[in-house]
Amino acid sequence: MFHKLTKTVEVNNFWCKESQIHIIWSCIQSHAGLLNLCIVVLIAVNSRLIIENLMKYGLLIGSGFWSSSTSVRDWPLLMCCLSLPIFPLAAFLVEKMAQKKYMTEHVVVTLHIIITTASILYPVLVILRCDSAFLSGVTLMMFACIVWMKLVSYAHTNYDMRQLAKSVNEGENSEINYSYNVSFESLAYFMVAPTLCYQLSYPRSASIRKGWLARQLIKLVIFTGLMGFIIEQYINPIVRSSQHPFEGNLLYAIERVLKLSVPILYVWLCMFYSLFHLWLNILAEVLRFGDREFYKDWWNAKTIDEYWRLWNMPVHKWMVRHIYFPCLRNGIPKGVAMVISFFISAVFHELCIAVPCRLFKFWAFLGIMFQIPLVILTNFLQNKFKNSNVGNMTFWCFFCIVGQPMCVLLYYHDVMNRNGSSS
Amino acid sequence: MFHKLTKTVEVNNFWCKESQIHIIWSCIQSHAGLLNLCIVVLIAVNSRLIIENLMKYGLLIGSGFWSSSTSVRDWPLLMCCLSLPIFPLAAFLVEKMAQKKYMTEHVVVTLHIIITTASILYPVLVILRCDSAFLSGVTLMMFACIVWMKLVSYAHTNYDMRQLAKSVNEGENSEINYSYNVSFESLAYFMVAPTLCYQLSYPRSASIRKGWLARQLIKLVIFTGLMGFIIEQYINPIVRSSQHPFEGNLLYAIERVLKLSVPILYVWLCMFYSLFHLWLNILAEVLRFGDREFYKDWWNAKTIDEYWRLWNMPVHKWMVRHIYFPCLRNGIPKGVAMVISFFISAVFHELCIAVPCRLFKFWAFLGIMFQIPLVILTNFLQNKFKNSNVGNMTFWCFFCIVGQPMCVLLYYHDVMNRNGSSS
Repeated sequence: MFHKLTKTVEVNNFWCKESQIHIIWSCIQSHAGLLNLCIVVLIAVNSRLIIENLMKYGLLIGSGFWSSSTSVRDWPLLMCCLSLPIFPLAAFLVEKMAQKKYMTEHVVVTLHIIITTASILYPVLVILRCDSAFLSGVTLMMFACIVWMKLVSYAHTNYDMRQLAKSVNEGENSEINYSYNVSFESLAYFMVAPTLCYQLSYPRSASIRKGWLARQLIKLVIFTGLMGFIIEQYINPIVRSSQHPFEGNLLYAIERVLKLSVPILYVWLCMFYSLFHLWLNILAEVLRFGDREFYKDWWNAKTIDEYWRLWNMPVHKWMVRHIYFPCLRNGIPKGVAMVISFFISAVFHELCIAVPCRLFKFWAFLGIMFQIPLVILTNFLQNKFKNSNVGNMTFWCFFCIVGQPMCVLLYYHDVMNRNGSSS
Repeated sequence: MFHKLTKTVEVNNFWCKESQIHIIWSCIQSHAGLLNLCIVVLIAVNSRLIIENLMKYGLLIGSGFWSSSTSVRDWPLLMCCLSLPIFPLAAFLVEKMAQKKYMTEHVVVTLHIIITTASILYPVLVILRCDSAFLSGVTLMMFACIVWMKLVSYAHTNYDMRQLAKSVNEGENSEINYSYNVSFESLAYFMVAPTLCYQLSYPRSASIRKGWLARQLIKLVIFTGLMGFIIEQYINPIVRSSQHPFEGNLLYAIERVLKLSVPILYVWLCMFYSLFHLWLNILAEVLRFGDREFYKDWWNAKTIDEYWRLWNMPVHKWMVRHIYFPCLRNGIPKGVAMVISFFISAVFHELCIAVPCRLFKFWAFLGIMFQIPLVILTNFLQNKFKNSNVGNMTFWCFFCIVGQPMCVLLYYHDVMNRNGSSS
């Protein structure tokens, strides 16, 4: 009897699942055509805009975009970039001496602060002294920021290991002599590996897949080229022909921002794909680096908060390891720790954009700090409309319509105004 | 043992279904964000085009679109429309006399041919004589075509019933005296009902839902208004500012067709929704007409063939009942019967568009006849790429990019050229 009953429940459950499949499936099926229509309309609209742009401007490629980035003006920046390995070398010497206890802990911390600060200030000074192209400047600043984050992680992890060794060795059973290793190889591998968090060793893959590597390299070239093409052909003409977003007609400003939003979105997606998917995987494959989680599915993010935790895993992991958790351990509340994380992010965004532009108006800084109210707003919306598309839709609206085009217009116009007044 | 085995199979099957749900679901989930992005980009692009149009042209509504359709010029057309009920009355008298056997079968058929031909020729002549607005002309021609199809169906069905009565009564058991009924009420109901196939009686709904009716009427007003707005504000300026599609620069022509395709698609969707969903349902509700299958899910059509069978059910049912099946019954192959159906459709499309334009260049006729190679092509594609989106994508491309904007441009330019040469 009992057996029969459980069987009936099971079969009912089965039919329940069966009908559920049918409901989900029929729901997808009945909308499949309309989704295809959306895609066809998107293709039609984009093709028309491409043709309109071609008829209006012709082919714009080949003017001075690619050549300027390799011109003589940018020579000092390349030199600066090549001399950046001095800082990890200095950090290594400091750590070696700290391991051998030639210095007190305070001296070690002070030396690391000097080294990391220098690794950021040196490129900033080089860029501000030279009249370099914007793209070269941004690239150098990105390298400098990566070096800075890696050095902070290196110093922090070694500090933690020293503390651990001290507490273990000071313990009663002194036969377990905990010692940590400061090797040049592990630092060198860490400096080139696609991660920002220092560990003595990483999971490694067995071999390098050469065919796969070649395919990814070809894709990288194609998508980087596409990105450059969209910037030269679509974004530059729109930005040049538009007014300052906070001046003049509001309707006109909205039209410009909306017109910019689509090519900027495409550039962003190309950038994300070629940097985070292609480049970091290529680097990891060459170095046989095992941990390939460079991004999660940020495109499904339901809140701004979730987006920042998903899109850039190396930086997110660094933030959690070296900012957020140390803050919590020192008794700082979660909200304040989040504000501190966004503050540091904002400072580095500002550095990466303002220095190559030679323009300190804090748009990038304010843009990142503005994420904090957005996080609160989108979390509120997500709590209110659970299991709906509202959160993800809001995210995409802020992401591709309001955020990026506004920043591009603000920076472009301030750069143009400064150039106009100086000439 | 056997019992245990079937149970295991069942549970395995259950887990199989379970994992299938998870695969389908995770597939939807992992793309949900990207679909939302598509929708956000579509909204952004459309909003920008609306703002651009507003800045370029301002509000265009109120010029002469709505007033011209009620001007004195269109008076004869309204009179003609009101006098159309003469033809069903004549058909009723013919049928009544045929039922009472006052006329031979040949005379009945000849009289019906005369009546149906007159019901089309009379409005055509009225429109060609008067200098009416295009919209009034199209409306009158649509009414005339509906009356023609209804009369053909009425004559055909009554003919079939007479043949049936004759064969039954000539049979051996003469006690079953089959007689058919020719009532004025059933013809009158048929003439106003939202169907084109005559039956002695139809399934009827129990009552009229007044609240529902009011809501549908409000929606009808809103969507008809929206349709007019899109035509006046978006389609007219584009058409006016564009060249003939077959003359001049090819790239320019493609740009114009793509630019037209989006607003024309929106107008078509509004037209479909207000005419086939709202208006026919309102009419059916008022008449308590039970059969509400006015359209099927044509948006999921995988071939052009399927589209024509799904989008307009009244005409499709009429075609099948009065053209396709009679052709098959007379030994005509399926392919030829299909060509005949498309030919009749093409003639009526040409009549409905060319007569109000007073321009006989056979674009509409060729447009419909061109569906036959498209049917063959899309059927071939669908057979080749089963279970994929290729069929539906191809359908949407032809439907909204190539088909309708081309026709609009061709007719507009020929009308303009004729007006230009005559003035």
